[in-house]
Amino acid sequence: MITLTTDFGTDSPYVAEIKAAIVSVARDARIIDITHAIPPQDIFQAAIVLADVSPRFPPGTIHVAVVDPGVGTDRRLLAASIGGQSYVAADNGVLTGILQDRAADLIMELNRPAYWLDTVSRTFHGRDIMSPVAARLDDGESIANMGVPIDDPLRIDWPLPETNHNEICGEIVRIDNFGNLITNIRGNLLADITADRAVVACGSHQSQGVQSTYGEHSAGTLVAVVGSAGRLELAVVNDSAAERLQVGVGQAVVVSW
Amino acid sequence: MITLTTDFGTDSPYVAEIKAAIVSVARDARIIDITHAIPPQDIFQAAIVLADVSPRFPPGTIHVAVVDPGVGTDRRLLAASIGGQSYVAADNGVLTGILQDRAADLIMELNRPAYWLDTVSRTFHGRDIMSPVAARLDDGESIANMGVPIDDPLRIDWPLPETNHNEICGEIVRIDNFGNLITNIRGNLLADITADRAVVACGSHQSQGVQSTYGEHSAGTLVAVVGSAGRLELAVVNDSAAERLQVGVGQAVVVSW
Amino acid sequence: MITLTTDFGTDSPYVAEIKAAIVSVARDARIIDITHAIPPQDIFQAAIVLADVSPRFPPGTIHVAVVDPGVGTDRRLLAASIGGQSYVAADNGVLTGILQDRAADLIMELNRPAYWLDTVSRTFHGRDIMSPVAARLDDGESIANMGVPIDDPLRIDWPLPETNHNEICGEIVRIDNFGNLITNIRGNLLADITADRAVVACGSHQSQGVQSTYGEHSAGTLVAVVGSAGRLELAVVNDSAAERLQVGVGQAVVVSW
Repeated sequence: MITLTTDFGTDSPYVAEIKAAIVSVARDARIIDITHAIPPQDIFQAAIVLADVSPRFPPGTIHVAVVDPGVGTDRRLLAASIGGQSYVAADNGVLTGILQDRAADLIMELNRPAYWLDTVSRTFHGRDIMSPVAARLDDGESIANMGVPIDDPLRIDWPLPETNHNEICGEIVRIDNFGNLITNIRGNLLADITADRAVVACGSHQSQGVQSTYGEHSAGTLVAVVGSAGRLELAVVNDSAAERLQVGVGQAVVVSW
Repeated sequence: MITLTTDFGTDSPYVAEIKAAIVSVARDARIIDITHAIPPQDIFQAAIVLADVSPRFPPGTIHVAVVDPGVGTDRRLLAASIGGQSYVAADNGVLTGILQDRAADLIMELNRPAYWLDTVSRTFHGRDIMSPVAARLDDGESIANMGVPIDDPLRIDWPLPETNHNEICGEIVRIDNFGNLITNIRGNLLADITADRAVVACGSHQSQGVQSTYGEHSAGTLVAVVGSAGRLELAVVNDSAAERLQVGVGQAVVVSW
Repeated sequence: MITLTTDFGTDSPYVAEIKAAIVSVARDARIIDITHAIPPQDIFQAAIVLADVSPRFPPGTIHVAVVDPGVGTDRRLLAASIGGQSYVAADNGVLTGILQDRAADLIMELNRPAYWLDTVSRTFHGRDIMSPVAARLDDGESIANMGVPIDDPLRIDWPLPETNHNEICGEIVRIDNFGNLITNIRGNLLADITADRAVVACGSHQSQGVQSTYGEHSAGTLVAVVGSAGRLELAVVNDSAAERLQVGVGQAVVVSW
C-alpha cells in the first residue's frame, strides 16, 4: 500500500503522472491519497500531516511525500524506515515530524538509477524517482538496496510547546477544513490539569475549560477540545474558528490554570 | 465495496484517516469517494446526494456518510440495510432521502465496541466507529450483529413538490458544478404534461417548455431539462444558471401549463 | 485500468456515478482519476491534458474523457485505439492532441446499445454510454465490436509554434497549480539553441536563458525551463508566474537567440 502527500493541488494531472509511474512498475499497487492540498512548497504543513496521519496506516505502508522546491538541485532523495512505516521523500525536512516522535530504523539516500524511470527529468523527481522507488518497495524490494545509509536527515525548526508552572505556551500548527485551529499541544500534556479550571487563550479570545467534544455547547461558542489527532484544538461550534478569530498558523495559544 | 460521503473538504487528511481505519480492518476493501464537498454540517445536502447517487452502485455496496455535527454527544450511530444497499451514518437525518423512496429492511443502533477501533476519540466517530464497522460489513459480517434494532431513525424536513390542477410547486435542492439548478420535481410528475406547453419559472426568470437536453439551444438560453438524476433542472446553455439567475438552494421553482 | 478526465469539478458526485456505472459492469476494474478540474466545457484543456498525461500509463490503459457540451445532440461518441492506449470520448475534438503526435489504429463510432446501460439519459452519456463501454473494454471486449469504424474524427484548432530563423513563436497552453506557464514549445525545438543565449519573452517580461530546473535561482526570479511534460515553461521560483505576470492561456511566448 502506497500513500501520496503532495502540494500539486487537488485534481492536478501531476498526481495522475505519479500514479502512472507507480502502476507502470507495480501494476497492482494500492494507492491512497493523503492530501494534495499542501500549500505550494510548504514543507512544515506536509511534515505535520505526515506525522499525524501516516502512523494510522497498517505497518509496512509506503508513504510518498512530494513537496520538493529543490527538485533538480543537489538536495538528496531519501527512503526511510521509521516506526514500522516506510517513507520516500526529498531530504528537505518533510520527515521532521515523524522523526520527532520515532527513531528511524534506516534512512537511505537514493542512488540507484536502475530503480528509477528510464528517463529522469530535472523538474519532477516525484514522478521519475520517488514513485518508481516506492513501487519497488511495494513489490517487496528492500529499502537497504535503494542507496547508501545516512544518519543526518535534514530537520526543519519544529515548534514545541513550553510548559511553565501554571501555563503551557504553544501555537497553531494546522487549520482544518472546518476552520478548527489545531495546536502543537498534545493532550497528554493536559492530563494532570483539571479540565474545567483551564483557560485556553488565543489572541484576545479565550475558552473556559477543555471540553470533551464540539457538540455539547451552543452554536457560536468557542471551545477547546483534545481532537482526533491527540492535539489541543480551538473550535467554534458549527462555525469556523479560523474566520471568527482571524488567526493563522503560528499564532500563539496559551493554556493556563 | 465501500463509498464515502463527508463534509471534510476535498483532499482533507481526515478522509485518509477514514481510509486508513478501513484498510486496517479489511485490507483489500475497495473504497470509492462519492464526495467530500458537502458543505460543513449540511445534513440535507448529504441526504440529497446519498439519495441520488448511492442506488446506482451494485447491490451490497456499503455507503458511509460522515456529516456529524453531533459527534461525541448522545446521538445514535446507525448501520442500515435499505433497498439492497447498506448505510453507516449518524442518526441525524442523513438517511432521510433514501428512506423517502425505499423501505428499510433493518436499522441497527451500533453498540458493539468490539467492532470499533481500540481507542475511540470523542471527536471523530467517522474514523473510530463508522469506518471499522463498514470494514466489518465489507468482510462479510452481518448488519444484525452490529447492535440493536431500531425503527425510529431521525428524519429531517424533506421538501416535497405540491401538485395543483395546473401547476407543480417545487424548489431547488442542489446546485451542481456547472451551476445547474436541480429541483425536487421528479420527471415522472411531468409525464402527462405536454412538454412544449409547460412554463418553468424560477424567481423572475422562466423557460418555455421542457427540453430533452442542454445542447439543442443556443449558448446563454435558459432551459429546463429532466436531468440525469431524474429531476427537473434549470440550466443555462454553456453557462452557470446559478450565477445568471443569482439563486440558491431553497428557491421556489414552479411548473405551470 | 481505466482513467477519467472530466469537467465535473473536483469531488462532484457525477464522478461517483461514472465509477458506479463502471463497477456495475466490471466489478474489479481499476480506476484512476486524471483530473476532474477541466474548466466546464473546455475541450482544449482536456485535449492538452490527455495528450500530456495519457501516454504515461501502461499500454492498454483505457482513458475516458467526459467533456461533452453537446451531450444528447447528434454528435458522435467514439472509442479509439491510438498509440497503444484506448480512448472513449465524444467526437468533439478532445482527442486532437493525442492524434497530433500519434496515428490512430482504429476509431469506432459507438452504436451498440447492448454495451450501454439499460436506461440511457439524454444528459449524461459519460455515465450511461462511455463508462459501460470502457468497462467492457477493460473486461477484454474488442474496440472493433463497439460500433462502426470512422476515419474523420473532429479536430479542433491546435496551436503550433512557428519557427523562424532566429526565433520560435509559441503560446501558453496550460497553467498548473504552481502558476507555471506551460507552452506549446517542445524541448526538442530548442535542442540546437545554446541555452544560455536564448531569451524567452512573454508580454513585457523576459527570462535570459533556458535553465535546467527551478531551484537554482533565487526566489522571485522568472525562469524558463523545459518541464516534466517536455514543454517549455515559464516559472517564478517559489511563486506563481501566472499571478506575477498576470497572463493566461493563449498568451504569446517568444524564444529568440
